[in-house]
Amino acid sequence: MSSLKIYSMTDKGTLYLIPNTLGGESIDDIIPETVRNEATSLRFFMVENIKSARRLLRKMDRQFPIDDSMFIEMNKRSTEQETMKALQWLIEGKNVGVISDAGCACVADPGADIVSMAHANKIAVVPFVGPSSILLSLMGSGFSGQKFTFHGYLPKDRKERIQTLKSYEFVARKKGYTQIFMDTPYRNMNVLEDLLNELADHTQLCIASNITLHNQRLRTMSVEDWRANAYDLSKSPCVFLIG
Amino acid sequence: MSSLKIYSMTDKGTLYLIPNTLGGESIDDIIPETVRNEATSLRFFMVENIKSARRLLRKMDRQFPIDDSMFIEMNKRSTEQETMKALQWLIEGKNVGVISDAGCACVADPGADIVSMAHANKIAVVPFVGPSSILLSLMGSGFSGQKFTFHGYLPKDRKERIQTLKSYEFVARKKGYTQIFMDTPYRNMNVLEDLLNELADHTQLCIASNITLHNQRLRTMSVEDWRANAYDLSKSPCVFLIG
Repeated sequence: MSSLKIYSMTDKGTLYLIPNTLGGESIDDIIPETVRNEATSLRFFMVENIKSARRLLRKMDRQFPIDDSMFIEMNKRSTEQETMKALQWLIEGKNVGVISDAGCACVADPGADIVSMAHANKIAVVPFVGPSSILLSLMGSGFSGQKFTFHGYLPKDRKERIQTLKSYEFVARKKGYTQIFMDTPYRNMNVLEDLLNELADHTQLCIASNITLHNQRLRTMSVEDWRANAYDLSKSPCVFLIG
Repeated sequence: MSSLKIYSMTDKGTLYLIPNTLGGESIDDIIPETVRNEATSLRFFMVENIKSARRLLRKMDRQFPIDDSMFIEMNKRSTEQETMKALQWLIEGKNVGVISDAGCACVADPGADIVSMAHANKIAVVPFVGPSSILLSLMGSGFSGQKFTFHGYLPKDRKERIQTLKSYEFVARKKGYTQIFMDTPYRNMNVLEDLLNELADHTQLCIASNITLHNQRLRTMSVEDWRANAYDLSKSPCVFLIG
């Protein structure tokens, strides 16, 4: 028997956190079989974007009955009433799946609000295994995975960004915590420019782009070597790490 | 075609980071099908523990030819020569798999040394998707996954541990970074005692035990509520989070 099935201890539903792809086509590469089966057995969903969630479910199961399923969106436009409706489903005993646009819900993605509400209402929460560009980049960087910090997105203002990058370099060197951060793809080349101009020659920098996709690139080099070997990151989702 | 296969760009081998289970029995729950197939196609391995790695490979494929495979151990007793031998395999064009005792290699587990050497020798590194108790706990905690720090294991000394826990609480409150940490199972009850005695009543604490196993427990409550609802953690691998 799958161990994923038996967590529900009450007559309430269970909240499942369902991984999405990072943009790649093959589910088999990145999502375990049981997770796919459990996800497509659900009919109630709280999702970052309905279209993207439907695409995932159809990719997991071509026969997935979208018309028999209910979707609530969680994003900047969502109202508290919508989140309350998802909570109501759970209280009524319905199992609910949370799906973000890419990768693992709740990590650099929405989802934490409904999870937090679930805990407050003693509803079981079950996170499923799937691809996280942050975790995969950390594994593949060769930097310490014993201690690390993920900072989310960089400040937009250039001066502030440079200051922030320098503080990450300082903390990585002084405290040994691997520093992980990202930005929106169209600002990646600005970030790279700032990294290569502002950090010390021998600072180790990892850039992981298009993780799990066919054009995945994952390289760790000194800043000095990056200056001679930089490549175009402007359209690729990237994770940056300082070791 | 699977996107996991086409990363190797040179006549050198590729270094694959292969997830292990977290102690559960069902591979299908936690490891994608392609990852299983790729892992069991390898014959050269660098592993935390040979017995545990062989068990995983046989679980992935009952027919896996253990006697035709080579294993080098990476742990406190490993010599630099052994790591150099794994690097030599890669340089000679052999694909090598890295397997730790549980979960994702290189994250709160060994593996970073060979990955770092691989990068220095321009060898492709491919991290595979699998279970990470740290990431799954963070997803399921309901705390911020936009900013977080993993601190690894707590100090053994009680006074130092209390001081450390209070500093985590302070940073979580002031900076909004979710604080993640662990300890060896036989010290978990001491950690719990210190958390419940020393943290503020309303501080939110998540404890995730036996993640992905049949007896998984994942709860977020205030410290005050934990005092009334604590349970035995002494034999369970646990992740602690302060939100």
